Amino acid sequence: LAKFKEKVLSIPKSYIELGKDDPRRITHSLKVALGITLVSFIYYEQHLYDTFGVNGMWAVVTVVFVYEFTAGATVSKGLNRGLATFLGGALGFGTVTLARRIGHICDTQPAECFHGQNKIAEGIVIGISVFIIAAGATFTRFFPKIKARYDYGVILFILTFTLVTVCGFRVDSDENDLRIAWERLATVLIGGATCIIISICIFPVWAGEDLHNSVASNLEKLANYLEAFGSVCFQSSKQGGGTMAIKKDESFLQGYKSVLRSTGDEETLANFARWEPGHGRFGFFYPWKQYLKIGDLARECASLIEAINPYVDSDIQQPPEFQNKIQESCKKMSAESSKALRELAAAIKTMTKPSYASPYLENSKSAMKHLKSALKDVSFESTDLLAILPAASVASILVEIVKCLEKISKAVHE
Amino acid sequence: LAKFKEKVLSIPKSYIELGKDDPRRITHSLKVALGITLVSFIYYEQHLYDTFGVNGMWAVVTVVFVYEFTAGATVSKGLNRGLATFLGGALGFGTVTLARRIGHICDTQPAECFHGQNKIAEGIVIGISVFIIAAGATFTRFFPKIKARYDYGVILFILTFTLVTVCGFRVDSDENDLRIAWERLATVLIGGATCIIISICIFPVWAGEDLHNSVASNLEKLANYLEAFGSVCFQSSKQGGGTMAIKKDESFLQGYKSVLRSTGDEETLANFARWEPGHGRFGFFYPWKQYLKIGDLARECASLIEAINPYVDSDIQQPPEFQNKIQESCKKMSAESSKALRELAAAIKTMTKPSYASPYLENSKSAMKHLKSALKDVSFESTDLLAILPAASVASILVEIVKCLEKISKAVHE
Repeated sequence: LAKFKEKVLSIPKSYIELGKDDPRRITHSLKVALGITLVSFIYYEQHLYDTFGVNGMWAVVTVVFVYEFTAGATVSKGLNRGLATFLGGALGFGTVTLARRIGHICDTQPAECFHGQNKIAEGIVIGISVFIIAAGATFTRFFPKIKARYDYGVILFILTFTLVTVCGFRVDSDENDLRIAWERLATVLIGGATCIIISICIFPVWAGEDLHNSVASNLEKLANYLEAFGSVCFQSSKQGGGTMAIKKDESFLQGYKSVLRSTGDEETLANFARWEPGHGRFGFFYPWKQYLKIGDLARECASLIEAINPYVDSDIQQPPEFQNKIQESCKKMSAESSKALRELAAAIKTMTKPSYASPYLENSKSAMKHLKSALKDVSFESTDLLAILPAASVASILVEIVKCLEKISKAVHE
Repeated sequence: LAKFKEKVLSIPKSYIELGKDDPRRITHSLKVALGITLVSFIYYEQHLYDTFGVNGMWAVVTVVFVYEFTAGATVSKGLNRGLATFLGGALGFGTVTLARRIGHICDTQPAECFHGQNKIAEGIVIGISVFIIAAGATFTRFFPKIKARYDYGVILFILTFTLVTVCGFRVDSDENDLRIAWERLATVLIGGATCIIISICIFPVWAGEDLHNSVASNLEKLANYLEAFGSVCFQSSKQGGGTMAIKKDESFLQGYKSVLRSTGDEETLANFARWEPGHGRFGFFYPWKQYLKIGDLARECASLIEAINPYVDSDIQQPPEFQNKIQESCKKMSAESSKALRELAAAIKTMTKPSYASPYLENSKSAMKHLKSALKDVSFESTDLLAILPAASVASILVEIVKCLEKISKAVHE
């Protein structure tokens, strides 16, 4: 029971932490609530209720489903929903009208006598068309491109088409049918517009900005790792044996792992960013794809770090003479690379040309050359290859990291 | 215009390819269409229509939104939706009743006279409670655990609560209110049950099986890479210089990259697999988490391969004497590791104990020892460290891969 009490007491705490972690979550929740409350005025206000009636609920449904955390996602879903409702409604209306005509033709007797039979022909036509459209549209969702951008729209298209046709079956005249379709479209548009306006105008959360920050912070995480690696890695060598132990400070070790895991998120953000209107320092046709390119290179770099990591964890004894030889250049390489990465991240953040990064990059390149020549005249009188291999491998991976950095720098310049 | 024609003509082709790629896509589309057509009978059939009326549309909405590709996802969404509709409806009904009472109290005059004012108090109570519930529930969605499993349920809860309360504002008596809530719940349950039954009974697509296959095929992709690496890598060494060129056969190069990218997918599948009833060779409480562990290790291994890759691409000349020394053991290591991986993958597929893998693993371990001793007595009279470093690094990464394999084998045994 004490445990249960503790658990219950921890709930408000976790709420507060969640809010502190990213205060935009609180404003987002309030914005959603505001949107829902606003559109429910369609019910409260007598005049609006007279116009839309029960169809006012579609405005509520729209807001609940369309409102997403980032503005881009909301705009994308809102436009998808609006367009899909229009297309589905139009196609549905056409189908119902057609089915009604076919029903009339099959009905050889006056409509009053065989009303039941008349409806059967109409029902079969509607049923078959619903089946075909639903199957076809669902299959379309498997195209990767459509899945990425119009998935929600296709679902809504199926939904609207089905509802309009089957409701049309129960409505007697084309005019009533049109009225229902129109009311529904209007309420969906009201709901969608409410979402888009709130998400853009009140404390907007831009997917583009998130992407921008995520890419920059990924570079910084790599920089953190390299910095820590450079300063600690070969340090203890002066006391004789020299291990490559690095303090297991979780924060930067976890850092590069989170970089490795960021693929999907960045792609989603880039997808949404494309839907956002120009804001702040980002124009309308801002090259979001470039960010994905930098993100990919950062992940490549993180992969190389992952390959260094086993050596870092193990306490392999290094022969001191060899270590002394490569230590300086390795240290310099990782320190300078880390500085270069930091400058590149800063350049992305401030959206300036990354000119401050180049000297560091040059430094790390010259350190690389230094290392290469140092490796060339290593003498193996006192040591064997197996013993120095871990350190040598680390050095060689560092070389690859520097090469990777050059690519990143090029990409940032673009 | 010719280009446009070509593009139009290519559309049916891409449809056919999409279907050939995974025939389950076709059956899935037909199943969705079947579900939608079935529930739309609520409209066609006079008796059902008399019972549910317009609320029959909720069955259609449920099927369109709940039906997902895998059975696990459908069950999870269906149960989420059913439960959320019940909870949201119950809480909404309570709120409306409360608001009506408060409205009556605030109404000091006979209800007939100041009906308008009476409604205002009720509307304010409903509006405030909608705002609070919507904000609170939206905020809850940010908890990672809830996001992963109950996200859809929370959205549906907000929706049902809002609709029941605002509709309740327009309905005069508690009984009518209850009737609407009940009709809606019943149609949602009909829709949800239709989805779940179709997805489980007709050509089911199991998320668990997908996860199972994905993990096994990831191991196979790694095996493919190592096999190709072992056979090609050091081959040209007999003709003098010997480069580490590997034929850039896209298929297996892309293979390990897709392994690196599979994190999110596997987690989603494992999440859905938990909702699936026992089927075929999988029990009800099958340890799906174990698959995630194997998947993580496979990704670690793929990371190491990514670190080998730069050496494979470059045409670095290797001193032949050194190459001859390590070539045999490197070849053996990657060939045996590849065989071990393949056996492990087969063991996962057939769900047997991976006993056939152990001898290969032992072989690769002994090759590793061989390599180590070979590295120990390398003599450096004719060559310098820089020249042999790439090959040495590859060898050392291979050692790490073998270590990683041991971990995978342990995980598979569990």
